[in-house]
Amino acid sequence: MQSTMQDVPLTVTRILAHGSTVHAGAKVTTWTGDGAPERRTFAEVGRRATRLAHALHGLGVREGEPVGTLMWNNGDHLEAYLAIPSMGAVLHTLNLRLPAEQLAWIVRHAADRVVIVSGSLLPLLAPLLPHLECVEHVVVSGAGDTSVLAGCRPQVHAYEELIAGHPDDAYPWPELEERQAAALCYTSGTTGEPKGVVYSHRSVYLHAMEVNAAASFGLTPAEVCLPVVPMFHVNAWGLPHAAFMAGSSLLMPDRFLQPAPLAEMIEAERPTVTAGVPTIWQGLLAELVAKPRDVSSLRTVISGGSACPPSLMKDFEEKLGLTLVQAWGMTETSPLGTVAYPPAGLNAEEAWPYRITQGRVPASVEARLVGPGGEVLPWDGRSAGELEVRGPWIAGAYHGGADGEPQRPEDKFSPDGWLRTGDVGVISPDGFLTLTDRAKDVIKSGGEWISSVELENHLMAHPGIAEAAVIGVPDEKWGERPLAAVVLRDGASADFEGLRAFLGDRVARWQLPERWTTVAAVPKTSVGKFDKKVLRKQYADGDLVVTVLGG
Amino acid sequence: MQSTMQDVPLTVTRILAHGSTVHAGAKVTTWTGDGAPERRTFAEVGRRATRLAHALHGLGVREGEPVGTLMWNNGDHLEAYLAIPSMGAVLHTLNLRLPAEQLAWIVRHAADRVVIVSGSLLPLLAPLLPHLECVEHVVVSGAGDTSVLAGCRPQVHAYEELIAGHPDDAYPWPELEERQAAALCYTSGTTGEPKGVVYSHRSVYLHAMEVNAAASFGLTPAEVCLPVVPMFHVNAWGLPHAAFMAGSSLLMPDRFLQPAPLAEMIEAERPTVTAGVPTIWQGLLAELVAKPRDVSSLRTVISGGSACPPSLMKDFEEKLGLTLVQAWGMTETSPLGTVAYPPAGLNAEEAWPYRITQGRVPASVEARLVGPGGEVLPWDGRSAGELEVRGPWIAGAYHGGADGEPQRPEDKFSPDGWLRTGDVGVISPDGFLTLTDRAKDVIKSGGEWISSVELENHLMAHPGIAEAAVIGVPDEKWGERPLAAVVLRDGASADFEGLRAFLGDRVARWQLPERWTTVAAVPKTSVGKFDKKVLRKQYADGDLVVTVLGG
Repeated sequence: MQSTMQDVPLTVTRILAHGSTVHAGAKVTTWTGDGAPERRTFAEVGRRATRLAHALHGLGVREGEPVGTLMWNNGDHLEAYLAIPSMGAVLHTLNLRLPAEQLAWIVRHAADRVVIVSGSLLPLLAPLLPHLECVEHVVVSGAGDTSVLAGCRPQVHAYEELIAGHPDDAYPWPELEERQAAALCYTSGTTGEPKGVVYSHRSVYLHAMEVNAAASFGLTPAEVCLPVVPMFHVNAWGLPHAAFMAGSSLLMPDRFLQPAPLAEMIEAERPTVTAGVPTIWQGLLAELVAKPRDVSSLRTVISGGSACPPSLMKDFEEKLGLTLVQAWGMTETSPLGTVAYPPAGLNAEEAWPYRITQGRVPASVEARLVGPGGEVLPWDGRSAGELEVRGPWIAGAYHGGADGEPQRPEDKFSPDGWLRTGDVGVISPDGFLTLTDRAKDVIKSGGEWISSVELENHLMAHPGIAEAAVIGVPDEKWGERPLAAVVLRDGASADFEGLRAFLGDRVARWQLPERWTTVAAVPKTSVGKFDKKVLRKQYADGDLVVTVLGG
Repeated sequence: MQSTMQDVPLTVTRILAHGSTVHAGAKVTTWTGDGAPERRTFAEVGRRATRLAHALHGLGVREGEPVGTLMWNNGDHLEAYLAIPSMGAVLHTLNLRLPAEQLAWIVRHAADRVVIVSGSLLPLLAPLLPHLECVEHVVVSGAGDTSVLAGCRPQVHAYEELIAGHPDDAYPWPELEERQAAALCYTSGTTGEPKGVVYSHRSVYLHAMEVNAAASFGLTPAEVCLPVVPMFHVNAWGLPHAAFMAGSSLLMPDRFLQPAPLAEMIEAERPTVTAGVPTIWQGLLAELVAKPRDVSSLRTVISGGSACPPSLMKDFEEKLGLTLVQAWGMTETSPLGTVAYPPAGLNAEEAWPYRITQGRVPASVEARLVGPGGEVLPWDGRSAGELEVRGPWIAGAYHGGADGEPQRPEDKFSPDGWLRTGDVGVISPDGFLTLTDRAKDVIKSGGEWISSVELENHLMAHPGIAEAAVIGVPDEKWGERPLAAVVLRDGASADFEGLRAFLGDRVARWQLPERWTTVAAVPKTSVGKFDKKVLRKQYADGDLVVTVLGG
């Protein structure tokens, strides 16, 4: 028996057509910092996106070709989000926070011929242009000092002038296959070259549907969504496409990501859903405590990008009356991987242990934990393994560059095609994921994994210890064993036996470090994370004075 | 540039695996009428569905083959919903309310070899079996008088015994393509033979995602969903698959669809979302007014299947404190076509005109109105045309039967593949659909459409008229013109000029009927709808005494 259903592709073109007609009156509001936000209806966005498609086609952009955007979250960027994929080209969002040479590498690797840039970011782009041989056109969105572009090789266009010369209808949107490329985003991995993930129309569409699920972020025409997470970070977690699909109005912060203007725009524009990284929420909390404002419009505040400190979640509730909801994902997962809503019917105290997990996967994301020996582990809340995921919006390869085939490095993709997330954790019998370590930070000891993060957290709870980092070091018998490097508080002594006994009350005996050292400070990365690579090198070079305790 | 995303199919197999693991503890509760509902966790449903797949495979069921279910809404039926598509076979739900000969025709047309039947429905199935040569196995779910099957040709099995003999794991679920057939449902059209719609895994999956959208029915693990709409009516509007996907618990009414047990189960089991036809809600309202119960758990009550009387919506709010939400769809649309949530920020009075429309389409359902001349009409709230729809869960053909190719009758599908819904209406600039007539009931007069329903409603508001039906009759000059057949109230006179003047204050002059007649009663179908076929025939046969007024 064969299905009798229509064969209609899932495309961004459909999102554009739907949002700009059925939800013609929904609004995208861009904060301008001058008290007069820029407001466009979805119908206007649709017409302007059509002009933009005509204009880009006029610049020679064709199907399958990337168009770079180096832009803040604003109405013009939304138009690029819709027009570029709908015309069959590939939206390539550029992360303006990357080091200049990495940004240049990425533009060259993608071979962007056209880059749309926010006027305020011209000082960032201009010095790169001599190194971006591929770029032929720069389109400047909004106000900015274009004098910095004087004498540059690419042609320079003003966004408004460029699109004004084109009709706002009758673009011959191509009939796309849903597996065609729609968007490109590079991971900003701290090691090695950046890796590009090429989202398809299918993946963008399905991901937007999931964002709009009541069990995820639940966008509807009744919501106003404030994506604080930048549109150059994994497509602002899918919110722009999802909001246009749902008819949910958007509040765009543009470059005003500091706590004070965020608080001001929330009070003034009354968004109902917002999403960002914990650092943003930490700043907003401090701002609102210092200068209270009415932020009661917010129904849900999503926190992702890194683990949200439980204390921040508590403070948000107690001081602001707002609920922070944790979500987990990565560039390779579009990013929606898990959302941490507690099960039904629990009181606040019962719900708490669930809220501080990473949460549960939706049906389209299949999860498994793989142990040190490659075995799939049970969901028992105890067996720790590397999280691997599979699904229609999960990457199965990386972009090979303008001339290359997609790359499938075996440390990133399993032989059967699942994504190796590089995150280690456990899953409870009721499906809640708790991530504890990066795979590169767990200690592989005799076929078992020891969580360095768990040991560190216990050590840092000791009154004599200011900081502690645990790394795996080579061991003849066990393969690897933990080494604890501690920073003592003033006046505390290096009583390693005592610390080991302290740990012994908290973790299994076989996990206790034999090797101990004191350091003046734990080496840190530029963003303040423990830099264990440095510690490992110091140990390998013999630069640490290590005490080995009896087994 | 090519996409680097994984290619993972959207299948019911994934829904089964997800619901029974990530939401292992969610529950399906089946009302038994004896105070002790039957309760199963999703994990148990998953294990029992696995046993069922083994058992059906043992009966010879193979990929692509239909398995009939003649069952109430209950836990066993949910297992069939999951197991049959996941094993690659086709879930064929049989409508137990159809006339016996139509039911038999459908079973033969689909060529069901296995039928699973609720024990209480054996008296319905048994007399049909001699006419169902294709059926080889009857599987009896739940208690029932199996003596009526004595001597029947097919082999008879008890559901529990059949599945008990098989393992609850290790079924070799096949790797399915998402466009493979998953489920089959026949329309119960009042004219012609029933027509089968074959849903694909893709369509079922995408439809379930949309049901779970916050802007649709919004199922989450925090909800308890009560599908009053039968599982043999367009897959209970997709709720069983959607609930299993979302981890939303299910309350199944089994055969207890009368107002009193419905009210009792709502009070006892506290569902949060429910869905059914207006008749059900009319009955529930009367029951709850007569015998109040606590139904405050209900967040949303969806009404579909036919237009919901506004008075019922008002009564639900005023007398029960419950919000009825209209939705529109049909067997060919899976069925989710539109949902009538009002726009944001309106008060009750402002929201009302939106709530009594059919609502707005989701992004995956594309809508257009086609006028009498085949032209696509604007969304201006005035231009009436036949609604045509397109999308991944909309039918593009009908099942051709065991040996036939899919059928695409041109009155049902446009040349470019859109479904012709047979419904006539208007769409407002903000996307709200209002259906006014069935296409077969509109009067095509000189290239314009006249709404018979609108004329009837105006006439029935006249104090002298008890009932009125308007039909289109052939006219040399205009093609068709309206004829009004009125039932006078006792004592009222047949003042056709006066009635025409009355109408003239309410509709455009060119819409006024010239032809008038009185009838003792408007002919009705078995379900109480106006049967205009009969009136048309009476007119054609010259059986009506018609007065023709001057133009």
